[in-house]
Amino acid sequence: MSRGSVVLLSGGMDSATCLALASRRGPVHALSFAYGQRHARELRAARALARRFEVSRHTVVALPLSSLVESSLTRPGRRLPSRAAARGTIPSTYVPARNTILLAVALGYAESHGLGTVYFGANAVDYSGYPDCRPEFVAAFNALARRAVRSPREGGHRIRIVAPLLRLSKAEIVRLGARLGVPWALTWSCYHGAARPCGRCDACRLRARGFRDAGVVDPSVGPRRPSSRARRAA
Amino acid sequence: MSRGSVVLLSGGMDSATCLALASRRGPVHALSFAYGQRHARELRAARALARRFEVSRHTVVALPLSSLVESSLTRPGRRLPSRAAARGTIPSTYVPARNTILLAVALGYAESHGLGTVYFGANAVDYSGYPDCRPEFVAAFNALARRAVRSPREGGHRIRIVAPLLRLSKAEIVRLGARLGVPWALTWSCYHGAARPCGRCDACRLRARGFRDAGVVDPSVGPRRPSSRARRAA
Repeated sequence: MSRGSVVLLSGGMDSATCLALASRRGPVHALSFAYGQRHARELRAARALARRFEVSRHTVVALPLSSLVESSLTRPGRRLPSRAAARGTIPSTYVPARNTILLAVALGYAESHGLGTVYFGANAVDYSGYPDCRPEFVAAFNALARRAVRSPREGGHRIRIVAPLLRLSKAEIVRLGARLGVPWALTWSCYHGAARPCGRCDACRLRARGFRDAGVVDPSVGPRRPSSRARRAA
Repeated sequence: MSRGSVVLLSGGMDSATCLALASRRGPVHALSFAYGQRHARELRAARALARRFEVSRHTVVALPLSSLVESSLTRPGRRLPSRAAARGTIPSTYVPARNTILLAVALGYAESHGLGTVYFGANAVDYSGYPDCRPEFVAAFNALARRAVRSPREGGHRIRIVAPLLRLSKAEIVRLGARLGVPWALTWSCYHGAARPCGRCDACRLRARGFRDAGVVDPSVGPRRPSSRARRAA
């Protein structure tokens, strides 16, 4: 089993928690992707996290996905959803095959750098709408990884994709991250790239609910900000 | 079953044969990749083939693989192999996880454009050294594809990866392509980017042997060029 890992680091709270886990277990490389997200705020968060955890190497890969696939996350004109998660449909922020593409690049990177583990912050509880965040997807990717690269007897090494947050709720991720000392203030979840999180998009709502349910204060919004539900009820 | 397909078009004889097959079966999109190959000659071939077959859309995707993975195909300093295929080892031209990455992008493209088939010119007979050209790899990718994108009941559609050349020898590919009217003069196989194929690299040797065994003249080298073996024996 090769030591060392590569973490898919978006800059959000899930990938930050993966980074904290991975960095306790050996040397870590981090990969982030500039794939045409609507703002660069999240990449700034990824860079800050990589520095804080002193990764061996952090690479930001330019991937021109916005010219290839359809998603409101990569098209400036499209409205971002604010209630899709609640409705149980696949939100327009779904980027076709995005996680397949990111994991494929991470697999090649791991093979080239002799790293045995790819950390993937997918979460099926809150993002069950995305097909490429489900346990069956991760299992199928692992089955592919066993065949896609050189085997140990061909001069290669075994590479495993691990998704340690797959079956955790957002509150459980907050509790785990808090135990690991994740610097939440450095993470970014909001779909928008303003100076502060908007508090209204799906990503902000899920994050706020996670912190509230875990009884942890989110330093990026402060202790006194009421939930949007509470504001509406008032 | 969605009509229409996307062809991974490198500009070589295998992907050209896939393009000829696909274009008989419905509308075709083509995807080529500028992934840091050592020369642009092969992309010029891809563009010429896309024009000749009048594809609905041809996209050249910039993928910065050379900064991520190790391969003599993407590193200017490295020597290219000329006898690796004969020795049965994995040549240094192997690009870690390349086909996984290209298929992942094609999968996202097919999902976004409502295309039901991805044509992949992998060939296990002559390239058995590459793990991502084997039948088990293609089967594993298809198993992944069934889970990676939105299913028909989620507003998506089924996408199949087909690799029609997988179990054909190079000579059989030449015969098939000749029947389909593949314009061989537009294709490019040589690992080098000179005005004419070098005739000595693995790719040139495999191509020459394929044409010779099929009894077909390769218009890109002409009818009278003896094989390199014949030259050495002389």
